[in-house]
Amino acid sequence: MKKKNDEKLKIIPLGGLEQIGMNITAFECQDSIVLVDCGLAFPEDDMLGVDLVIPDVTYLLENADKVKGLCITHGHEDHIGAIPYILKQINMPIYATKLTNGLIENKLKEHGMLRTVKRKVVKYGQSINLGCFRIEFIKTNHSIQDAAALALFSPAGIVVHTGDFKVDYTPVFGDAIDLQRFGEIGKKGVLALLCESTNAERSGFTPSEKTVGRVFDNLFSEYSDTRIIIATFASNVDRVQQIINSAHKYGRKVVVEGRSMVNVIATASELGYLNIPENTLIEVDQLKNYPDEQTVLITTGSQGESMAALSRMANGTHRKISIKPRDTIIFSSHPIPGNEKAVSNVINELSMKGANVVMQDTHVSGHACEEEIKLIYSLVRPKYTVPIHGEYKHRKAQARIAEKMGIEKDHIFMLSSGDVLEVSEDSAKVTGKVHTGAIMVDGLGVGDVGNIVLRDRQHLAEDGIIIVVLTLQSGTGQVLAGPDIVSRGFVYVRGSEDLMESARAVLIDTMDRCMDKNITDWTKIKNEIKDSLGDFVWKETQRRPMIMPIIMEV
Amino acid sequence: MKKKNDEKLKIIPLGGLEQIGMNITAFECQDSIVLVDCGLAFPEDDMLGVDLVIPDVTYLLENADKVKGLCITHGHEDHIGAIPYILKQINMPIYATKLTNGLIENKLKEHGMLRTVKRKVVKYGQSINLGCFRIEFIKTNHSIQDAAALALFSPAGIVVHTGDFKVDYTPVFGDAIDLQRFGEIGKKGVLALLCESTNAERSGFTPSEKTVGRVFDNLFSEYSDTRIIIATFASNVDRVQQIINSAHKYGRKVVVEGRSMVNVIATASELGYLNIPENTLIEVDQLKNYPDEQTVLITTGSQGESMAALSRMANGTHRKISIKPRDTIIFSSHPIPGNEKAVSNVINELSMKGANVVMQDTHVSGHACEEEIKLIYSLVRPKYTVPIHGEYKHRKAQARIAEKMGIEKDHIFMLSSGDVLEVSEDSAKVTGKVHTGAIMVDGLGVGDVGNIVLRDRQHLAEDGIIIVVLTLQSGTGQVLAGPDIVSRGFVYVRGSEDLMESARAVLIDTMDRCMDKNITDWTKIKNEIKDSLGDFVWKETQRRPMIMPIIMEV
Repeated sequence: MKKKNDEKLKIIPLGGLEQIGMNITAFECQDSIVLVDCGLAFPEDDMLGVDLVIPDVTYLLENADKVKGLCITHGHEDHIGAIPYILKQINMPIYATKLTNGLIENKLKEHGMLRTVKRKVVKYGQSINLGCFRIEFIKTNHSIQDAAALALFSPAGIVVHTGDFKVDYTPVFGDAIDLQRFGEIGKKGVLALLCESTNAERSGFTPSEKTVGRVFDNLFSEYSDTRIIIATFASNVDRVQQIINSAHKYGRKVVVEGRSMVNVIATASELGYLNIPENTLIEVDQLKNYPDEQTVLITTGSQGESMAALSRMANGTHRKISIKPRDTIIFSSHPIPGNEKAVSNVINELSMKGANVVMQDTHVSGHACEEEIKLIYSLVRPKYTVPIHGEYKHRKAQARIAEKMGIEKDHIFMLSSGDVLEVSEDSAKVTGKVHTGAIMVDGLGVGDVGNIVLRDRQHLAEDGIIIVVLTLQSGTGQVLAGPDIVSRGFVYVRGSEDLMESARAVLIDTMDRCMDKNITDWTKIKNEIKDSLGDFVWKETQRRPMIMPIIMEV
Repeated sequence: MKKKNDEKLKIIPLGGLEQIGMNITAFECQDSIVLVDCGLAFPEDDMLGVDLVIPDVTYLLENADKVKGLCITHGHEDHIGAIPYILKQINMPIYATKLTNGLIENKLKEHGMLRTVKRKVVKYGQSINLGCFRIEFIKTNHSIQDAAALALFSPAGIVVHTGDFKVDYTPVFGDAIDLQRFGEIGKKGVLALLCESTNAERSGFTPSEKTVGRVFDNLFSEYSDTRIIIATFASNVDRVQQIINSAHKYGRKVVVEGRSMVNVIATASELGYLNIPENTLIEVDQLKNYPDEQTVLITTGSQGESMAALSRMANGTHRKISIKPRDTIIFSSHPIPGNEKAVSNVINELSMKGANVVMQDTHVSGHACEEEIKLIYSLVRPKYTVPIHGEYKHRKAQARIAEKMGIEKDHIFMLSSGDVLEVSEDSAKVTGKVHTGAIMVDGLGVGDVGNIVLRDRQHLAEDGIIIVVLTLQSGTGQVLAGPDIVSRGFVYVRGSEDLMESARAVLIDTMDRCMDKNITDWTKIKNEIKDSLGDFVWKETQRRPMIMPIIMEV
């Protein structure tokens, strides 16, 4: 009979549970911390001017001596995008499969960190030892190649982390998900499962990537007499492969447009993940040498991103490609929530130029639906489970699936970022909370834009600013110059001379009142100005611009 | 044999073709102009701080003597919302069905215009004479009651304008769309059809509003032991009626939450469009007197609008209603494009509070799908057709349907706002263009926010502002005070003291250089400041805040 195991394992999500993206989870046992993924999040609508968001890893900095390494499940931005920022704070070796490692290296190169960060390419089935952990990489399928689930063998027991995955029995490249190994590990007894939730609300199975290839073939045959432009995700190498396959089959030359598309294709070809027949790729400048019906363009911009190649073609600002009335444009993508309107705008612009836009059956998801999640639960049969990746409603949907699969309700943990879930052979509970947060990156600044700056930006965006300047005489406090008024983003000044003139009169009154009352304290004067001008402007316009008095002294 | 008719009719859309909303079309024949609808548009994402958008009616002002009146198809904001703003510029009588007129009167009351604007309630089948036009109101169905199509009988021929419509054979209130009359008028010979396009991309038929009532009954039966909260569009009186019916049937009291919901229900009940059984409605304060399972709340906020009642319940800021873990929350709506993320956020917040969110089969559209559009074409059989209402891709979809229905390609007009389409018995073509535009309303200001103000707001929103003030001595140009720097929305100043100190050093250098070179022209000094500080800030932060030098003279 097996001896009772008293070891405890802490599972600490440091991000990724309050938003899409910023996936990063710490696993801690004895004196070892292992990290899984290190992603960024894209800014919410109210994060004005912010470029990207990265996790606050104070907890790791405080426990730097324990941190053994970073294992990456796959090469999407929400799993690798924060690596340069976090590793500048705390260096550690990175473990990933070949393509994932290639994409990480591109990032490290950009940040000049290739020489300082250790990396190791791991093969499926291979294990690495990090402190008291042994971590095995297991083959899965996803909308990027080389995705892996991780089995973390710890003194406290086995944890399985699925990463993002789907079950594709007929993948375009490489093998199907290694269901046998999931089953084998499950048979050993799995303490906890961390499974992704993105599509948990959707019933059934996600179709195979190959189904899209058949649709491409049909479309290439149907639109054999027009140019074809296909927008898709740069990172979906299998999708690009299938477009190239159809192009080759139907005798078309392929042009690749958009910086991220060019980069990913370069990395993927170099590492052997993309098979491009000779004489298929041409440069955009060579397009003119071929009739339209012998060309196809693969482009970025499937999410309506304003600066992407397709958007520039649509609004006529692309330097080299103009949309023609007979073009066939295929969106091989679905809009990510929040991008629906931007995508719609691009479609309208393309339609106005006479192009024919096609988007039916031209995309499949890379995430597991309800039946695939059930399959993983059946194979792994975990004691405890933590739904991860996805908005709250998605994770809750997985929790309901877990219940259906026989997991006891109090063995299902709906965690928040920072929760410390302590798991052992005979119990699991949240025993604490560590500091976490979202750090905003704007240009070169990491963390110098916070809530105060954002609130000001929102205020400025809504109603603009009125600046009031005056120069006072040192000692007497007498007004030597001003009050002058300058505004930006408030009203069209040339059409509002009366309003600005009256505003100035209000300020002169205010200053007279201050003089009469002998108010010389600058803070008080500024407050008087803010109040009187604010009231006046609200009464006249029902707007609340930021009012900013500036006093100088001579 | 009929004599040839040489009369010409001009169809001039003054808005509504470049965006959703702002529907307004002028019909001009001989010395008469008749308007159909007068709607507002909601601001696009880049219209920061703007409340709403109204059409530029310069053309009407220039032809004021011809303008005979305004006919309204139905009471939605995108068809009536601009009435107070436009009628302040050019008064004219308004013609509408009873409920539509009631909703218009609410608006006129708010703007103090009830006494100055003439109104006439028109019944279905009734005609009004406006100049050389006779206009008949024809019963249709839509997601608001009392919707009408219009038949405009002009000396040049008959034009049919569908307004927004669907074909509902089993409406909740009143009659089905008057297909017979569409057929009868079609038989007389219709010169042109203006048909809405919102759902033209969707195949099949839009289901009857009654199907939602059956779903409500099932949900009330299924969730008989919880409180039910239903979010829907305030203006959808039939939807509200069906909720009340189910509530009454299952013995629940009804609370109405949200200002617009309360207002519409008041108007609709008063005019007899809503039948509320006695003792069904209760005030929100009485909720505590009833067990949860005997209450239902009807609320605004189905689009995730941040200030609406449901959003405030979801984020815990509603003063009177807290979401409870067992609440059932029904979204009786689909997100309008652009609102998907906001709706998702509200659902996540509700789920986090433990509520159960239901949205399957709880909504049907108010717009005609492909087969309904075909039905109208079959009955009306127009010579020329103008797809209206909807984004370009929707209107283009209707154009394709029109072709399928046998309309010649060059008889289908994809117009832009301002196009003058001249139609007569034997020809139709765009003969000119009138001035149109979108005027932004912000608070009390109509038109004082234009592109310059918006560009400034966008700049401020993105990177904030740095203000540089200095006082110069009159005559000598010597610096008496400053340069001082103040910033807002740029960086968190307390964490960036070094940066701000260096920026000040850059400015002192700049001023020294100006002195050395004897530059005294203020414009030149300001440009020097902008350039040197701008370069410094970009190098340090890769941000481009607005830089605003202000010079005072003593």
